[in-house]
Amino acid sequence: MKAKSYAAPAADKPLDYYEFDRREPTATDVEIDVHYCGVCHSDIHTARGDWGEVAYPCIPGHEIVGTVTRMGSSVTKFKVGDRVGVGCMVNSCGECEACKNGLENSCFKGTVWTYSSTDPIDGSDTKGGYSTIMVAPEHFVLSLPDSLDMAQAAPLLCAGITTYSPLRHWKVGPGMKVGVIGLGGLGHMGVKYAKSFGAEVWVLTTSPEKEVAARSYGAAGVIVTKSKDEMDKYAHYFDFLLDTIPKGHDLTPYLQLLNVAGTICLVGPIEPMPGFHSGNVINGQKSIAGSGIGGIKETQEMLEYSAKNNIFPEIELINIKDINQAWDNLASKQMAKRYVIDMKKSFS
Amino acid sequence: MKAKSYAAPAADKPLDYYEFDRREPTATDVEIDVHYCGVCHSDIHTARGDWGEVAYPCIPGHEIVGTVTRMGSSVTKFKVGDRVGVGCMVNSCGECEACKNGLENSCFKGTVWTYSSTDPIDGSDTKGGYSTIMVAPEHFVLSLPDSLDMAQAAPLLCAGITTYSPLRHWKVGPGMKVGVIGLGGLGHMGVKYAKSFGAEVWVLTTSPEKEVAARSYGAAGVIVTKSKDEMDKYAHYFDFLLDTIPKGHDLTPYLQLLNVAGTICLVGPIEPMPGFHSGNVINGQKSIAGSGIGGIKETQEMLEYSAKNNIFPEIELINIKDINQAWDNLASKQMAKRYVIDMKKSFS
Repeated sequence: MKAKSYAAPAADKPLDYYEFDRREPTATDVEIDVHYCGVCHSDIHTARGDWGEVAYPCIPGHEIVGTVTRMGSSVTKFKVGDRVGVGCMVNSCGECEACKNGLENSCFKGTVWTYSSTDPIDGSDTKGGYSTIMVAPEHFVLSLPDSLDMAQAAPLLCAGITTYSPLRHWKVGPGMKVGVIGLGGLGHMGVKYAKSFGAEVWVLTTSPEKEVAARSYGAAGVIVTKSKDEMDKYAHYFDFLLDTIPKGHDLTPYLQLLNVAGTICLVGPIEPMPGFHSGNVINGQKSIAGSGIGGIKETQEMLEYSAKNNIFPEIELINIKDINQAWDNLASKQMAKRYVIDMKKSFS
Repeated sequence: MKAKSYAAPAADKPLDYYEFDRREPTATDVEIDVHYCGVCHSDIHTARGDWGEVAYPCIPGHEIVGTVTRMGSSVTKFKVGDRVGVGCMVNSCGECEACKNGLENSCFKGTVWTYSSTDPIDGSDTKGGYSTIMVAPEHFVLSLPDSLDMAQAAPLLCAGITTYSPLRHWKVGPGMKVGVIGLGGLGHMGVKYAKSFGAEVWVLTTSPEKEVAARSYGAAGVIVTKSKDEMDKYAHYFDFLLDTIPKGHDLTPYLQLLNVAGTICLVGPIEPMPGFHSGNVINGQKSIAGSGIGGIKETQEMLEYSAKNNIFPEIELINIKDINQAWDNLASKQMAKRYVIDMKKSFS
């Protein structure tokens, strides 16, 4: 992440104080009229400097859905009016082994993230979807299946693929016991996908009041992680734990929940984790893994799967003027669903 | 590990000062005349209190080979004179899901280790193979294939199975690139097995002088981990890293060597590891795993495989009177092979 300055935008400035406009589409670019943009914990981390210094203005947002307005001369996948999406990345080298295998999210030269990365096309800082307009290379633009509601589709582009990909990679399916740690934007999608893949799913949470929501998404129940009795009861129970906690945390209590050969997969924190006792993975041949979004090909597959199987995020539409309150709610763990900014209503 | 006292045995006491004898074999026990016992870094860790307080006298040794001298009335697998071995464990609950699946090494109620554990049969501290006699339950006694040399077989029972099991579990085979970190007792067996399974194998070491040994065991070469240039050159290169470093260490330099979906498996340290940045596993869907020895069934399979494929440890026979020097050499990373105590010569 390139640091230019570290001064937060003044709260009393109007929204259009900062430079929000985008480049003219190059030959391979698609320009999008943004209808909706999901609100991800990453937006908060980035904009508040949790992940390092940020160049302001920072325009977050990487769950972007809209319609094509213009495109470059060599774009072939889309036409004006198409319903499309952009997720967490807008470029990669295209030449390394990861890119060649459709894993642009793991590009060896560094994935170009949708906001606050350096854009290789014009050297500017990339700008995300808290905006009325988006420009991105064709390769990184997804097609929305016809049956997908545009607002509901938005969170699929980060929360959806971030949970779908590891559940697929670690072959979650019938007969497996899966725990989803944290029931927020990511967690609730993890529950829905794991359930649809045939697993028995539990939610691990510090908030027992989320049980009703958890069960409505398909969970067998919740395990309150603050309760030593409950945690002891489920020792060795899980084959796979999807850990959506959005900050560094001690893995010890969770490792004891894993069955032999079990895996805990971090998808929430992108920051330092505290140390762990290696005996807790050596005993039982366990793994501490990580996973971040998914490649473009798999993201398109996830959209088709979600449309076909009616798996959608729970969303609450907000006006962009209410974003600070939404961020506060998100950070205080109150949400078992996803906020989505209604851009058309925000600027109507 | 049960702590009784924490006073090291006085150096000026004769070897037979401490109580080395074993219980009369119960109905299910096998008594063994110990011929050889391998020297493992765990012996040093335990006896020197690295892993917590130890009840002295502590009798280490869990790479034990000998012949059957007596057995209990219900023992059916063995007869007097049989060539047998005992590895790192001598009991487990036998009833949990792990035990029922042949993974006694991951017993949910706690594996009973060969030395310095509490023996469920008589409540004493278990006593290992730095001894002329060994008594262990039949289930935890392995049969040595006829073609296996007894001295060479000893290190298979810890160093062998500890490297064989994870390489099998993570399906190391043709087309895979495997790095073995550390070329000691475990590492050199890891190189031999990974090579025999068809992988391209490299040794990662701080000791460039081990290259000749590494190549003789089947490695394509060594990567000197102190060299930033060499480490950078092999970024994203490996599908699997077998980490035999016998103490806690920073995983960051090794995680960068992993290809997408790669795994680093800890088999050396059984102690706290420092923190890590979760971005280093999230980016590339990588795993930090662990593995400790293997179940009895797989240990027997490993013995058969080793005999059939002529995979043996490099050993140096020593007299038990030279054990302190051997430990010092081991701890100072000079060994690319395994010391084995020749018990018959030691007490002839």
